[in-house]
This record gives sequence, C-alpha cells and structure tokens, in this order.
Amino acid sequence: MVVVMAEGASEEQIQNVVAHLVEQGFDVHRSTGAQRTVLGAVGAGRHRDPRLLEVLDGVNEVVRISEPYKLASRTFKRDNTVFDVGDVRIGGDEVIVMAGPCSAESEAQVRAAAAAVKRAGAKIFRGGAFKPRSSPYSFQGLGEEGLRLLRDASNAENLKLITEVMDLSQIEVIDKYTDIFQVGARNMQNFTLLRELGHAKKPVLIKRGISATIEEWLLSAEYVLSGGNEDVILCERGIRTFETATRNTFDISAIPVVKKLSHLPIVADPSHGAGRRDMVAPMARAAVAAGADGLIIEVHCDPDHALSDGAQSMFPAQFDRLMAELRIIAPAIGRSICLEPVRRGGWGS
Amino acid sequence: MVVVMAEGASEEQIQNVVAHLVEQGFDVHRSTGAQRTVLGAVGAGRHRDPRLLEVLDGVNEVVRISEPYKLASRTFKRDNTVFDVGDVRIGGDEVIVMAGPCSAESEAQVRAAAAAVKRAGAKIFRGGAFKPRSSPYSFQGLGEEGLRLLRDASNAENLKLITEVMDLSQIEVIDKYTDIFQVGARNMQNFTLLRELGHAKKPVLIKRGISATIEEWLLSAEYVLSGGNEDVILCERGIRTFETATRNTFDISAIPVVKKLSHLPIVADPSHGAGRRDMVAPMARAAVAAGADGLIIEVHCDPDHALSDGAQSMFPAQFDRLMAELRIIAPAIGRSICLEPVRRGGWGS
Amino acid sequence: MVVVMAEGASEEQIQNVVAHLVEQGFDVHRSTGAQRTVLGAVGAGRHRDPRLLEVLDGVNEVVRISEPYKLASRTFKRDNTVFDVGDVRIGGDEVIVMAGPCSAESEAQVRAAAAAVKRAGAKIFRGGAFKPRSSPYSFQGLGEEGLRLLRDASNAENLKLITEVMDLSQIEVIDKYTDIFQVGARNMQNFTLLRELGHAKKPVLIKRGISATIEEWLLSAEYVLSGGNEDVILCERGIRTFETATRNTFDISAIPVVKKLSHLPIVADPSHGAGRRDMVAPMARAAVAAGADGLIIEVHCDPDHALSDGAQSMFPAQFDRLMAELRIIAPAIGRSICLEPVRRGGWGS
Amino acid sequence: MVVVMAEGASEEQIQNVVAHLVEQGFDVHRSTGAQRTVLGAVGAGRHRDPRLLEVLDGVNEVVRISEPYKLASRTFKRDNTVFDVGDVRIGGDEVIVMAGPCSAESEAQVRAAAAAVKRAGAKIFRGGAFKPRSSPYSFQGLGEEGLRLLRDASNAENLKLITEVMDLSQIEVIDKYTDIFQVGARNMQNFTLLRELGHAKKPVLIKRGISATIEEWLLSAEYVLSGGNEDVILCERGIRTFETATRNTFDISAIPVVKKLSHLPIVADPSHGAGRRDMVAPMARAAVAAGADGLIIEVHCDPDHALSDGAQSMFPAQFDRLMAELRIIAPAIGRSICLEPVRRGGWGS
Repeated sequence: MVVVMAEGASEEQIQNVVAHLVEQGFDVHRSTGAQRTVLGAVGAGRHRDPRLLEVLDGVNEVVRISEPYKLASRTFKRDNTVFDVGDVRIGGDEVIVMAGPCSAESEAQVRAAAAAVKRAGAKIFRGGAFKPRSSPYSFQGLGEEGLRLLRDASNAENLKLITEVMDLSQIEVIDKYTDIFQVGARNMQNFTLLRELGHAKKPVLIKRGISATIEEWLLSAEYVLSGGNEDVILCERGIRTFETATRNTFDISAIPVVKKLSHLPIVADPSHGAGRRDMVAPMARAAVAAGADGLIIEVHCDPDHALSDGAQSMFPAQFDRLMAELRIIAPAIGRSICLEPVRRGGWGS
Repeated sequence: MVVVMAEGASEEQIQNVVAHLVEQGFDVHRSTGAQRTVLGAVGAGRHRDPRLLEVLDGVNEVVRISEPYKLASRTFKRDNTVFDVGDVRIGGDEVIVMAGPCSAESEAQVRAAAAAVKRAGAKIFRGGAFKPRSSPYSFQGLGEEGLRLLRDASNAENLKLITEVMDLSQIEVIDKYTDIFQVGARNMQNFTLLRELGHAKKPVLIKRGISATIEEWLLSAEYVLSGGNEDVILCERGIRTFETATRNTFDISAIPVVKKLSHLPIVADPSHGAGRRDMVAPMARAAVAAGADGLIIEVHCDPDHALSDGAQSMFPAQFDRLMAELRIIAPAIGRSICLEPVRRGGWGS
Repeated sequence: MVVVMAEGASEEQIQNVVAHLVEQGFDVHRSTGAQRTVLGAVGAGRHRDPRLLEVLDGVNEVVRISEPYKLASRTFKRDNTVFDVGDVRIGGDEVIVMAGPCSAESEAQVRAAAAAVKRAGAKIFRGGAFKPRSSPYSFQGLGEEGLRLLRDASNAENLKLITEVMDLSQIEVIDKYTDIFQVGARNMQNFTLLRELGHAKKPVLIKRGISATIEEWLLSAEYVLSGGNEDVILCERGIRTFETATRNTFDISAIPVVKKLSHLPIVADPSHGAGRRDMVAPMARAAVAAGADGLIIEVHCDPDHALSDGAQSMFPAQFDRLMAELRIIAPAIGRSICLEPVRRGGWGS
Repeated sequence: MVVVMAEGASEEQIQNVVAHLVEQGFDVHRSTGAQRTVLGAVGAGRHRDPRLLEVLDGVNEVVRISEPYKLASRTFKRDNTVFDVGDVRIGGDEVIVMAGPCSAESEAQVRAAAAAVKRAGAKIFRGGAFKPRSSPYSFQGLGEEGLRLLRDASNAENLKLITEVMDLSQIEVIDKYTDIFQVGARNMQNFTLLRELGHAKKPVLIKRGISATIEEWLLSAEYVLSGGNEDVILCERGIRTFETATRNTFDISAIPVVKKLSHLPIVADPSHGAGRRDMVAPMARAAVAAGADGLIIEVHCDPDHALSDGAQSMFPAQFDRLMAELRIIAPAIGRSICLEPVRRGGWGS
C-alpha cells in the first residue's frame, strides 16, 4: 500500500498513519518530498480495506499495490489456462462456439435447435432450465424436465452442454445433466453459490455482472478458484451505461484487458451484449477479432414464439452465415474456428 | 402496448404486426398519420417482451403502456404503506433511524454500539452476522453466534433488530433472531431468495442493486409482495457511475421518484451511499430533506478497528450530532424524528 | 508520482523506468519489497501524463501524488473563497438563491418572473438570451434584445443578474448587461472560452458537464483562475447515469466532496438536476441540507407556455413554498437564507 | 406523440391534455381501454418538448413517435452517403484508414509519421495544431505553424489531411490547410461551431461526445447538415462508464446502430477508445469486423517522447502489423482495405 499524505500534513498526522500501518503488520518506508510525504507499506495485510487509512487526518490518497485477487492473476500463473471438456478444448487455438435457445421449452424445440447449431459448427449446446426473470410473472423455466431435454439433445448431436445454475440448492440436480455450470450476471456476486462451485468437479463459466468492474469479476473467479476448481471461464455479456439505443453496452475492450490481467479463458455473449437479433452478428465478429476464446450465442428455430429472449435469438440461417464470416476472421489473429463444419443440409445462403 | 411503425412501412408489414398482436390476445386500434402509422394494443399480454415486436420489419419503436409491476405501484394502492414492527411505526410521520455496526464482532462491541445508538435516538439496531464480501479472503461474519449477540443487545436496549440474509438456506436461522430481514444490494435480483421471503412473516428491506433501475427495484419488491408479504421497505444506497471521488453516487432523486411510483416506504443508507465517514452526515441530512421515511446508518464505537466497513462507520459523537441536525430538518417537510431522545450521558455537542 | 512495478519485473525493466523518470526531471526513491518494487518520483514534472509510464514494460500501475489543479485546491488556499456581487455575498453564511425563467421571451414574461422571485427571497435573477439547444430546430433565444429585458427587470427589482455565455464571440455583448457569467454544462470543457473568461472582471459560474468528473470540473475552474479571475462559482446540475426515471442523476455528494477539495463556493441547480417541476423542491431542500452555498432555480409565471424548459420550471407559488421550507432547513447547518423576505402580495398557499 | 394517461385518470384530466395538444396544432386520436386511455397526437409540433405534457395531472408517460433529427436519418435518405475527398472515397467498399500523430510537434516528427503511415496503407493523414487539453498547463499545440507542417507532409506523401477545429475563430485559418474538419468529442455540442461548419465547403468529421447518446450525436450532425453541408462523417471514440480499467469504454455496438438509424459514414477511433497503445490493435480489428467505414489511429515514430497522447500512439511497426490483420478481416464483410500498399522499406517483423 502507498499512502500519499496531504500537502501540509503535520508530523503528528504522519506518525499516526505510520503507527496504524505498523499495527497492521506492515513495514513502512517514508519518503519526504518538498511538498508531500509518501509512505510505502510493504509486507502482510494484503486484503486490508484502504479506505480505513483514507479517513485518517492528513491523508490524501491510498493506493493498493497489489491486486486483491491472486489465483486469477497472470502474475500468479503466466501461461493461459487451457482445459478439455470431453473432446472440446477451451482456451486453445480454436475459437469455441456455444449456441442454443435461451430456455428449453419442448422436446421438439430443443432437438431442432441442437441439430441446427451442430450443423453450423457449434461444439457446445446452451439452454436454460431454471431462468432468472426480473418479473415474477414471466416464464421461469421447465426445471429438471428441461435439463433432461437439453442433455438428450446434446447426446443426440454429440455436443457438450452448458446450463445455468441460479442457487446453491440447484447444484446437485444440475450436476447430473450438465458439462459446464453457468453462473449468470445477476449471480456474479452470489458468494454462497460461487464458494460451493469451487468444490464442483466441472468447469464454471462466470458471466460478468451488468455493472461489475473487471476487478470484481476476477474476484468472483477467485471464489471458485480458491475452492480448488481451476476450470473457470469468464464471459463478457455487456455492461449497463447511459446509452439506451442498445439493451447493454457490449464492452469489447474487456477482452484484451482480461487477457492481460488473467490467465483464464474469456468468451463473449453477443446475444445479451446486443439484446437484438440484428446486432448479434457484428458483435460476434468484433469479439473474435478482439481475441475472444469463444462465443455463446442464442439460436432458436422459431424465435418469434420463444418463451424468453426471442428478440435476441438468431434464426439458424443467420447463425450459419455468421459462422462463415467468423471462419474468415479467426486466422487474422492466428486462431481457427471449427475447421470441418458438418454440412448435411444447409440453412443459409 | 403502442407500436410505432417506421415512416414508409408497407401495408404488408403493418398487417404482419397486427397479426402478431392479435395472436397474443390484444385488441388493436390503428391510427394512420401522414407520415406514420401507430398501433395501440390493449387487453391481455401484460408481461409480453416488447423487444419481440421491435425486431419485426417496419417497426420503429414499441412502448409499454403499463408498468411491469403491479402490487408495488401507486396505481394499485393509492395510500402509503404503513406498518408496525412492535412499537416502531414504519412509513408514518416519524422518520425512523436504524443504526449499528456493519458486522457483529464481539459481545462488548455489539453492546457498546447498541447503547450508543439508542441514546442518540435510533429505534432499530442494525448489524450483520453473514457478510457478503467481494474478496474470498475478507472477514465473512460470525454466523449464528453473531445473530445471538445482536438479538441480546437489541433486547437489552429495547431496540428492534434488522440483519442481512444472503441465501435461501439462511432464512430459517435468521428468522429466530431478527425483526426485519435485510436483502443486500448484491442480492436484489436473487429471485429464489426474494420469492421465499414472500412467505416470511416479517418485514423485508430491499436495498437497491448498485446498477438497478428504479423499475427493476420495484420488480424485486413485486417478487416479495406477490408471495403475500406486504411489509416491504425499499432502501436507496447509492448507484455506480463514472465518478470515482465517492465509492457510489447516492441517488437522492430516487426518493421522490419512488414516492411517486409506489406506496412502499423508502429509507436511505448514507453510509454505503457515501462510503466515507466524513460524507455520511451531509448525505443523511439530504435524504431526510428529500423525504426519506428513515435512515440506516453504520455506527461503531471504534471504527478504526472494525472488521468491515470501518471507514464509513460514524463515531457515536458524530452520530449524536447528526441526530440533532435531523431534528431541525424533519419539521420542514412535516415530519418528526425521535421526539424524546433518551439522554443519559451525552456524547457530542 | 508513484510507479508500482509488476511482480516479477526484471531489473532491466526497473532501470528503464528509473531512466525515464530521471529524464523527466524527477528524483527517484526506490523501495524494494519481497514481491514488488515501488518507485517514488518527486520533484518537477507536475503535469506529466502518467499513462506514458504505464505502457512501459514491467509497470503495473502509476499513481499521481498531486492533484492536476493547483489554484482551485484547498491545499493552495485553506479558507473559503467569499466575494461580493454588489450587496450580495457569495460563499458566506447566507445561502443565496438565484431564480428566474430559462429564457427571456418577452418583456411582460421577464418582468413578472423577476417580481415573483424577488418577492419570495431570491437575490439574483437568472435567464438566458443565447440558448444552447440540442436540436437546430428549437428556439435559440432572443440575443441582445433578451439581455436588455433581463437587465431592465433586474434593475427594477434590485436583483443581480446571471446569464449564459456560449462562445468567445458573445463575451463582449453579454459583459454590457450581466453581473455574473454563466458557463453551461456543454461548454465546461470549451477551453478557448474559459481562458478568455479568466480575463473578465466579473464572476464566472461553471456548471458541471453532464459526465465530467469532479477533478475535470476543478481543472476547468483552473483555466479561469489561472487567467487571474478569482471569482469562480461551481454549480452541480446532475450527471448522466444509467437511470432513466429522471433526466439526470443529481449528484448530491458532489457538494461535500467539492467543499473538501476546493475553497470555491458551490451552488446547486435542482431544476436541471431533476428535469421535472415536481422533483425540484426535494432536490433543492437536499442540496441546502448537504451544504450548498446557493441554488439556481427555474421559475416561470406560465411554464406551460414557456419556449424552453417549461417542464422543469416552478410556478411562483411552488417556489414561495420551497423558500419557506429552506428557511427551516438552513439553520440545521448554521446557515441562513434571505432573512427578511419582502412580502407585498403573497403567492403560496 | 403518444400520451399514455395514468390508470384512473379523470375525464377532466384527459380533456385538459387533449386541449393542450389541440392548442399545439395536433390532431388527437383517443383510444379508451379498460384500464387506461391512450391519446395519439399526429400532425405538426415535431420538436415540442414531451416533458411539458408529462408534468400535466393524470399523465403517465409521453412517447415521441418520430426522431428529433431528420436529415441525418435513414428514413430521410435510404442510401448510404458516399463522397470523395480528392481520390479517396469515404463510405464506399474500401475501409479508409486515417493515421498520424496526436499533435504536430516539429517538421521532422510530422514528416516521419506521414511517411510511415503512407507506407502501411493509410490514405488520410491526421494531426492536431490546436489541442483541447483538460489542464491549462499542458502543451496546447503549435497553431498555424503546425497546420503548415501537416499540410506539407501530406502533400509530400500524397495523403489527404484531417485536423481539429476547436472554435469558430479557427475555421478560417484551418480552412486554408485541411481537407477535412474534425470536431472533437468535447465540442460535439458546441452548436455555434457546428452551425458555422454547416456553411463550410469541406467534409466535417464529428466525434461522439464522451457521454453523448447516439441520438444526441445525430442531432449534432443535423446542425451541420441543416446548414447545407452534406459531407458529414461520424466517429465513435469511446464513452465514459463506471469501468476504470480502460480510459473509455469503446462502444462497438454504436457502429451497427448508427448504420441502422442513419445514412452517414461512421469511422472508429480505437486510440482514444482504448487509451493505451497495447489495446489499440484489438479495438481496431473489432471495429472493422463490426462494419466501420474507416479508422482514425494515432501513430508516432517516437511515442515515448510525444508531447501529447504518447501512451496511446502506436509505433509504426505495430501499425504495419495491424494493417496486415485488417486486410484479412475486411473481406469477411465484403469490404477491402488499401489493396495496394506501397512497400518500399518494410516495418513489420
């Protein structure tokens, strides 16, 4: 910690701050300038709240000199985290696409969606059985029946499955069906849930909270990592700003920033980032161009009748076209994307 | 819902939108202007996602004509909600002050804080036993032992108690000790928790999420209300903006806005709103001047050694002085504040 | 400046940073910890861009240890700036109220407004002759004819006058009529204009830009102060956030923050802060309770027919009632507000 | 305009609103539902402030049904605006790259930068002679001497020139040297300046204000268009949000949104959007992938010693590598980028 004293701080005030720091177990280096005194505190006290010093008399500013997270930082682990979910490698050279409907609604709907996204080159199927909805009057998901439908469809198409867990009490049942746990934006700081997922044996994808700083997001990852689960994926999905022309502001710069600060893989969710079907493709292309390790996209064969998020779900033909565009972009940054797409029918043009 | 078609939308596009609305169970009124056609949709479909219509061809904009919440709205209930917690009336003419430490740390600390806030005129004791901390390495609270300390101190001083519940699994134990459940800002959209608190027999205070719109906040209240629990208190505690000079931006205008939209009582938390001890008093005075029904304030007898939030906790003498200032301000808007403060000792001046 | 090196930074990287600092004229103190090296740079280079160091290899973070402004800071001048505009003292014990219509529209309208605000206790008349409007098709003000109307009405009621200057080219003509120059939020970083107002012989009120940090705002004041004009007033008028229930978010905490960082007087504009007539009174009361040195409020005798900002203009009777409430609140913080209001007729009820 | 009355609004309140609308010259269609009455107002009154109706008794919400801008909208002009600056086509199939130093500092620096960006494939040279700096103590530019250096270097390399105009008073001198006028983010709502540029005979590039909505930005374009100058370019350069890990949040979604709402070309400024050299390339790639018509990038041959914005200026070798990446990405969306780069020496590695 570095404590910058105010200009004109008295010797008594400086000694009081030094005493506080020493009491906390720090070694203190004092640097006296013409105008200001600066105190460098080194040693223990890693997680001390800097505001406690800020309110002392004569203190101008306090600066932490280490990130509050450790296991998630690139300082701790220089090399990118890469892991496998069955035959799918996360964090490697290939950009991995996860796609599927917002919610599982019926067997037919789930099956059709799985077939469509497989055909276009997705490797992981996404879909929700428990839905966090801001209104108590909205569709809340099919529960375990939905999980069964999602699993069956994934198996039928040889896709891995990712689905959302909203609460501690759902971990056990979801664990029976899923390959990857998804923590939604609203639960990014549900620490009880995160702590428990630190003991799970499967990867955890953590969406960024709608107004979470990148630092807070990495601290949430730290909750899972510190429990012993090293397979964490971060997912940018848009932040809340003053702009109302889009539902959220997709924070494209979070991708290179996370790559710099952390070794964890980062994927992007352009569906929530944009909030409208016609904005999903440009955001998806931008995310890959900026260096994302993967994408998670909502696709529905009949989005106009979807029970949730229909407006931001792509038609299969749109998704197919997008995948073709991504295959051109990925090599620009030395990546590939699903090199051998399975072309049984053909949706797009 | 009102659907505004784009200038130059074709008759076919208009008919397509009409068909969609009729399919959803709406009656449609069509208004054809020189430049644009406007469709008014009345009837059912209260909770339909307007974005589904926005992505149809030829549609310029879709406007909801009713709020997405119902029980929380002043349209539904014109008179202010007023209820009693023992002998303390919430939402009445008196401005109610809740005060106490961030966390229960020890018996001596809890007792001293309770005595101090009682003396100054607080009616409800606040303190946490389960703490949501953004870092997994921070102090996480004393758990049930903390609840016991808080209850005993409240009883000793004849104060009511409010304490935070972070998760579904904590409701049962907390219910044994508390008078009011507090839902923290990070849990404002923990819908599983809110739904369960709708069945609780005690009031629920819901803090505004750090980036929640007022509409989303009222929808969270709706989750509790729709479960049958009518005793909901809203609590403004600052929102996240670009300004970094303060920890949060205390949204003072939320107070009159909520008073207009809803019948629920609203209190303010200037401690979190300001984030620094020296900013708490001005924010508290401003909140009462703007019409808040109460305040919730962190007070600690030795804040420099508090295990959490010490920087924003007031010294008892500061709190005492603040209460004196508030007693002058409240009458300006026809309110009172703790008319007969118990003056056994006397802290500040 | 304090430069925090990354954990594991090489000796070569550290030496490179030291060399840069020395080249810039700094004295460098080096502090080597177990995990990190911290470099303290003292001396010249006050206005050096810290980002230049941040992009050097091995640098983790760079922290300025002095504010970028000087003349505006409380470090530079401990006592509050207090000055007189004729018989009106700005920054003293009395809370000064400036009020009047958004724009001058006609002689009758200006005269009626001036009489109404004088009667209620305002000391300074406000009104615009040159209007910055976001649409090129909106009413743009009466120009010099408007200035004449405003001056005449001020003289008739023995009020001082404040009016907005939008551009360098308007300074000369406005100087003939006004007592205080007002710089609008959109011009807060029009540095050409600010620099010129540094040579004006009259006070300058600078509104905070809609997304300006408090630091940037004080830097704008610095432009005027560094030109030799010491009579600067700051004006909080709301910032842009994600919340859409109000036009702007009135940043009430800016008042105590500015009081701490600077010696300059600060007033509040609750009309723009709220954007709606029915929200102006609570925001005005809150601003005084938080310690504002004054208020600037839009009042119009027929706001429904105002040519600009009618929705946020108060009726005279509302303004009168507000002034009565403020007279109760001000003493809570040791202030007064227009002790002897002139009561010739009587509006409120 | 559509006026949604509150539930339970009285007949008298409804008639009062109808009377207001008729007085403003609207035709009113009334739609009476079981719960609410909705009034559709068609006809004149395009630029009426909707808030004036919102404050009437019994009104719940007022919705504009037309954009406040006209000439800038795609409704007004369906086809993309495409125009030539000499032999450089803006808004066509080719993605145009503008590059150069932040400020002109010396002849050698300007010449070297021009040669470097030309070699890599830029078509337009950028550089400032008048600099808007938030601190009055920072380097403010070379003035006309800087303009001369920029023009000479552009001519020597057969590049077009874009440079910033900060104030009305600078238009005349800048017009002697530049090919395109640049309006900076801080001046986006300097309406006096914009109005005058509406009479200029050269294209105007308008950067988005740091907290401007897309609607406000298009209204600023409207100021120029309504003066008769049809050659307007929009430039996204990042918005201000709560995130502090980057200087600004580059709003990548603004690109497809502007493409939908307007016919004007849009370019991106990843240097200001990112604020750090190492984030510029990913943001530039993302912008092209999202559909930008061009880029404007800061390049400096010795950025560590640049007098302004050095931290965000690319080295020539970085810029060269970026151009190579962009040539791969552009075809993914049917665009090209500088097909025949001049390779005399070779920078990249």
